[in-house]
Formats: sequence, structure tokens, C-alpha cells
Amino acid sequence: MTLTFKALERAPVDSRHDLDAVLEAVRFNADGLIPAIAQQHDSGEVLMMAWMNREALEETLRTGRVCYWSRSRGTLWRKGESSGQQQHLKSAALDCDGDTLLLQVEQMGPACHTGRRSCFYVLLEQDGARIGSAPLIDPDTLYGKA
Amino acid sequence: MTLTFKALERAPVDSRHDLDAVLEAVRFNADGLIPAIAQQHDSGEVLMMAWMNREALEETLRTGRVCYWSRSRGTLWRKGESSGQQQHLKSAALDCDGDTLLLQVEQMGPACHTGRRSCFYVLLEQDGARIGSAPLIDPDTLYGKA
Repeated sequence: MTLTFKALERAPVDSRHDLDAVLEAVRFNADGLIPAIAQQHDSGEVLMMAWMNREALEETLRTGRVCYWSRSRGTLWRKGESSGQQQHLKSAALDCDGDTLLLQVEQMGPACHTGRRSCFYVLLEQDGARIGSAPLIDPDTLYGKA
Repeated sequence: MTLTFKALERAPVDSRHDLDAVLEAVRFNADGLIPAIAQQHDSGEVLMMAWMNREALEETLRTGRVCYWSRSRGTLWRKGESSGQQQHLKSAALDCDGDTLLLQVEQMGPACHTGRRSCFYVLLEQDGARIGSAPLIDPDTLYGKA
């Protein structure tokens, strides 16, 4: 692995002053959102990409549990709140123009709502799209329907 | 590494029929764009995130060289065209809802316009943002200004 991140076991950021200093570098888009890529910190697997507003990012940095903004539901989306498949934040980095986040996380179980470890399982191949991995867990079990 | 991707040395997609079949699964946003995450295929390092329109994605799949859409310039952005720091496509995957791409690439030199290997070098830490890595190459050299 040649990750450029300092693999720090970061204590959550908790004072208002610190949070403001951290968030100063972040450029949210016209909708007040920023894309956040979640990567499993030790394997390097890219798990998912979702969006955060300022409140979601603040909560993530303050608590050390990853919280996104659900664009479809229009609410904070505390990852794993209903499924138990939480993401614990190890470190966070911004890109060169401050408009994309990369989170190093410890993913509990599958990241994907389909029960797969990663959301990126649809392979674009020569003759079309192909499903590239099987669920680890039945999604009905994941969300308590089975 | 536990990447779910089939690490195929893909021959570029070249027939119109094949391209249409591959692109059928892709959901572009209201602006006709989709975010694409580029990951170094062997190390797992996340290099950058940029946007593609349909034409950029078609060109990427057809040629095996990664091409983005520059939102600031409003043109196709053939990665490395001016700097020589190209990205050669190894494989491409879509996420579960079809609106984000993950590209496995062979990155020639630095991916970032600052001369750094990865664009994600601004670390969000307890007391603010900190630069986490040094350039591999002076950006003036990269773009032929020095």
C-alpha cells in the first residue's frame, strides 16, 4: 500500500473552534454538498461514494462515526443506523481543490445495501455490464425483514 | 487486497453495439455527468475523483485511456494530454445505483496537477487542515513551464 494518508487513530474532533478550523478548507457545492469516498483503511478497497452536507461532515468528525446526507430522503444518514453496518472513521482527506473527501474507515460488515462488501460490483466489460460479486448477507436479514 | 474487481487486462471496447450495451447501466445526473474515482490498480491508492459525460466515458472505454469532462473548461479532458501523466484503464465498475464509477488504472507519474501522486493530500486533523505529502515533480516541470 502506498496511501499518502497518515494512518492516525484519530480522536474525534470535539471543540467548536477545532471543527471550524478543519472545515475551513472544505468547498461544498451549490447544493451545500460534497462527495465523500469511503475506503477500507487496511485493504484499500473502495466501498462506496455518498454525499455529505456540512452538518453530516461535522457529525462525522465529532463522533468518529460516518454520517452522510441522503439526497433522496433529504435527511442525515447515519451509516449503519438501521443495518448495524457502521463505518468508523480512521482519517479524512480533502483533494487538491477542496471539493471531494476521501475517508479511511473501518467498515463493519457490508457497505452496500444489497449486502455486498462494496457498492462497486457492476463490472463494465466488453459486451455489457456484469455482476462481479455476491452478497455477503441477504439484504432482508440486514434490514431486519427476514 | 480484497478488491472485488476482476483484474482484467481489458481490450478496449470498440464496436458501437458493445458500447451501447456497456453504457446502458450508467445513470448520468441532470447535467449529463457522472463522478469517476480513479484508483491505482495494484496499490489501491485512490488518486483522484473527476467527472465524465457520456462522450468522455465512451472514449475511455473505446481507447483504454482515461478521459474526463472538465466542468471548469467545458471540454473533454484527456488526462495527461498536456502533462504526459496519462491513466491507462485496467477495469471499470459502476456502483449499486449506477451513478458513480470506479476505475482501476495504471497512473503514469503523478495524478495531481500539483505534482503529487494523489490529489487527496489535505489531511483533516484535530486542529485544522495539514498538507500530507510532497510533490513528486515540480508542477512547472510537469506542464513544461520550467
